[in-house]
Amino acid sequence: MTVSSLSVRAARAERVRAAMAAAGVDVLLLSLGADLPWLTGYHAMPLERLTMLVMPADGEASLVVPRLEAPRVEADPDLFALRPWEESEDPVAIVAALAGAGRRGGLSLSAGKGSGASFAVSDRTWATFVLALQAALPDVSWRPASGVTGPLRALKDEAEIAALAAASAAADRVAADLLAGAISLAGRTERAVSEDIGRRLIAEGHQSVNFAIVGSGPNSASPHHQPGARVIAPGEAVVCDFGGTMDGYCSDITRTVFTGAPPDEFVELYDLLVEAQAAAVAAAEVGTPCEDVDAAARGIITSGGLGAHFVHRTGHGIGLEEHEDPYIVAGNPTPLAPGHAFSVEPGIYIDARFGARIEDIVVATAGGPRSLNRVDHALVVVDT
Amino acid sequence: MTVSSLSVRAARAERVRAAMAAAGVDVLLLSLGADLPWLTGYHAMPLERLTMLVMPADGEASLVVPRLEAPRVEADPDLFALRPWEESEDPVAIVAALAGAGRRGGLSLSAGKGSGASFAVSDRTWATFVLALQAALPDVSWRPASGVTGPLRALKDEAEIAALAAASAAADRVAADLLAGAISLAGRTERAVSEDIGRRLIAEGHQSVNFAIVGSGPNSASPHHQPGARVIAPGEAVVCDFGGTMDGYCSDITRTVFTGAPPDEFVELYDLLVEAQAAAVAAAEVGTPCEDVDAAARGIITSGGLGAHFVHRTGHGIGLEEHEDPYIVAGNPTPLAPGHAFSVEPGIYIDARFGARIEDIVVATAGGPRSLNRVDHALVVVDT
Repeated sequence: MTVSSLSVRAARAERVRAAMAAAGVDVLLLSLGADLPWLTGYHAMPLERLTMLVMPADGEASLVVPRLEAPRVEADPDLFALRPWEESEDPVAIVAALAGAGRRGGLSLSAGKGSGASFAVSDRTWATFVLALQAALPDVSWRPASGVTGPLRALKDEAEIAALAAASAAADRVAADLLAGAISLAGRTERAVSEDIGRRLIAEGHQSVNFAIVGSGPNSASPHHQPGARVIAPGEAVVCDFGGTMDGYCSDITRTVFTGAPPDEFVELYDLLVEAQAAAVAAAEVGTPCEDVDAAARGIITSGGLGAHFVHRTGHGIGLEEHEDPYIVAGNPTPLAPGHAFSVEPGIYIDARFGARIEDIVVATAGGPRSLNRVDHALVVVDT
Repeated sequence: MTVSSLSVRAARAERVRAAMAAAGVDVLLLSLGADLPWLTGYHAMPLERLTMLVMPADGEASLVVPRLEAPRVEADPDLFALRPWEESEDPVAIVAALAGAGRRGGLSLSAGKGSGASFAVSDRTWATFVLALQAALPDVSWRPASGVTGPLRALKDEAEIAALAAASAAADRVAADLLAGAISLAGRTERAVSEDIGRRLIAEGHQSVNFAIVGSGPNSASPHHQPGARVIAPGEAVVCDFGGTMDGYCSDITRTVFTGAPPDEFVELYDLLVEAQAAAVAAAEVGTPCEDVDAAARGIITSGGLGAHFVHRTGHGIGLEEHEDPYIVAGNPTPLAPGHAFSVEPGIYIDARFGARIEDIVVATAGGPRSLNRVDHALVVVDT
C-alpha cells in the first residue's frame, strides 16, 4: 500500500527519535492517521478496538493491536514488538503499562522541565482513548504527535514524490476528460457527475476516491459543496474538486469550467484567479515562508477588489493524507524546503451567483517550484 | 442521507438534555462520529478544520463550522445557532467561549459533585482538538459523549429499523449471489472478489462500501483479514464479511462457503458454528443481558471443544455506525430492549488452516428476536 521499504522505515524511526529528544517527548503513541503507516507500514482499523504503537524515546517500541487483527500486521522486529490483546483485556491498561516503562527511561530527557513526563499522541486518536489514557497516566502532559512527526512527514523523499506525481497524473487524466467535454455536465445532477468523476479516478489507477466535489451555478460559490440533486444548467460555472488515494498517496485537483458562454464578470474573476494561482506557484521557492505563498495569491485577488471573496487559505500539504503539513496559510512562517508537497488552490466565491477555484499540487525543489498537475488553466467552455 | 425529520431530531435533543441532566453533564461537544448527524442531520468533514456542536444542558446550542463548509449545513434554528468561523479565527477558542457560557448555566447541575464542570465530547473527536480544548478549559472534567448518547442511539425507532432492514436486504442479495455461485471464487484473488462484492453492494442500493473482507484458505482463520493478492484455490474455506451504508444506515453480513468438498473436520466445525449462532439469536430476548447472548454462543462452541478458537465477542450494535452500542460481549450487563439492533457473529478459527464465521443483524422486539438477514446458514459448496 505504501511505497516505503523496511530500511526507509528504520531511517524514519531514527529521525522520529531524534525529534522526540529535541522536543522533550518521552513516549510517542500512534493510533489513527498516517503517522503509524508512515512509520510501520500498518494502518490501524478505525474502530472501537484500540491499535496503538508505543514508542519510547530510548526504548523498544511495541505495537498494541487487537488479537483478531494481529494477523494483518507485517512483522518488523527491528522496529517494534507485537503485543496482541484479547477481548477480555483492557488495551488502555496495556498501553499505559508499556508507556510507563518507556517513561522511566525517558524521564531524564524532561527532568529539567518540571514534574511528569511528556507524551505525544497521534492527532486523530479518538477522544475516548485519549481520555482513558489520561486517566490511566495522570501525571503525564500530552501534546499532539504532529508536533514531532508533521515536519518529518512533510519532507517527501524521491519515492514519495514519484508516488504523488503518479497520483496527480491519474487525476490529470480525469481533469483532461472534464475540459475536453468528455464528462457531460448540463442536464445531469451534480451527484451523477461526482459519481462519474469517482469512477474515472478508479479507472485511472486510484484505489479509493476521497472526495469529488461538484458545485454548479450558485453552489459553485460554496467551496466544500456537497454534490446533490441539483441539475446542472447551461450558462453556469461548475467547480470540480476531486482526489483519491493511489498506492498510498493522495491526489487533489480542482478545475472550474463554464457550461456555455460565461458573462464578462465571470471571465474577469477567472482571469484574476489564474493570475493569483500562478503567482503563488511562482512564489513557492525553497526558503520562502508558507505565509508568503498565501500572500502572493491573496495580494493579487485583493488588488483586484475581490479579497473578501477568497475565504480560505491558499493550500495544504499532501502525502499519505489529503491535508497535512505544511499549511499554506497566513501565520505559518515555516520556510519551504526541498520535498515539501502542497496544494496551491486560491478560489473566489460570489455568494449565490458563482465561484471558481484552480488547484494544482506543487513540490518545492532546489530547481524551483514543480507543478505535479499539468492540465491547462485557461477557462474552458463545455457543453456548447 | 439520514431518515430523521426535524421533529424526530427535536425529540432526540430533548432526550439528550434529560440524559445530560441525569449524568451531571453540563455541556455536550459533538464533532466526528454519528452523534452529530443523529442529532442535527449534519456530518462533520473528517478534516483538520474543527466542526463542533456546543450543546449546554440548559442553554441554546451552537454549531461551530468552518465558514467554507457553512453552506452545507441545513439550517435548524430550533436546534442550534450557526457559528461559522473564518480561517483567521481559532475555532477552539470559539468553542471554549460558547461552552464556558453554557457551563455557567449548567454549573448548578454539577455543583454538588465537587469543583469544575463536566463536559462530554464525542468519542471520535480528534486528539488534537481534545488537547486544545483541555488547555482552553483547564477546570473542566471530561468524559466520552457515548456515555450520554450511546444508550439513546442504541434504541432504534421504526424508521431506523426499516432503514436497517432495507440495508440488510440489499446485503442479503449479494450474499445470495455468493451462495448461488454467481460470484466465482476459485482462480480469482481475494482482492478481486472483494471488489466484486463491493460493486454488488453499490448496485443493490448502498451509497458506500464500508468493508468487504475475503479470507481464503489459511486466511479464513484471520478474522479481520485484509483481502490481498492470494489466489483462491479449490478445496478452501472462504469467509466473506461485508457491509456498506444505505440511506445513512449500515449493513453487515458474513457467510462462509467452501470451494469444493469440505473435509469432515470443517463440516463439524461449521455445524457447531451454525448451532452457536442460532442459540445466540434465540437468546436475544428483551430483558436478556448482552453478556448472556455472548455466553449462549460461547457455551456451545466451548462445549464442542473449540472455545479457545472463538477469539472475539459475539457482536456489536449497528445503526448510523457499523459498530456502536450495545456490544454483545462478556462483561456487558445491559439488558436488551425493544429496538436494540446488533450483529450476532460467532466465529471459529483454526490457525493456518481454516476458519468460519456466520453473521446476521438481529433486532430485539417485544415479539422476540428478529433477524434482518434471511440468507440461509447451511454450508454451501461453490465452484464445483
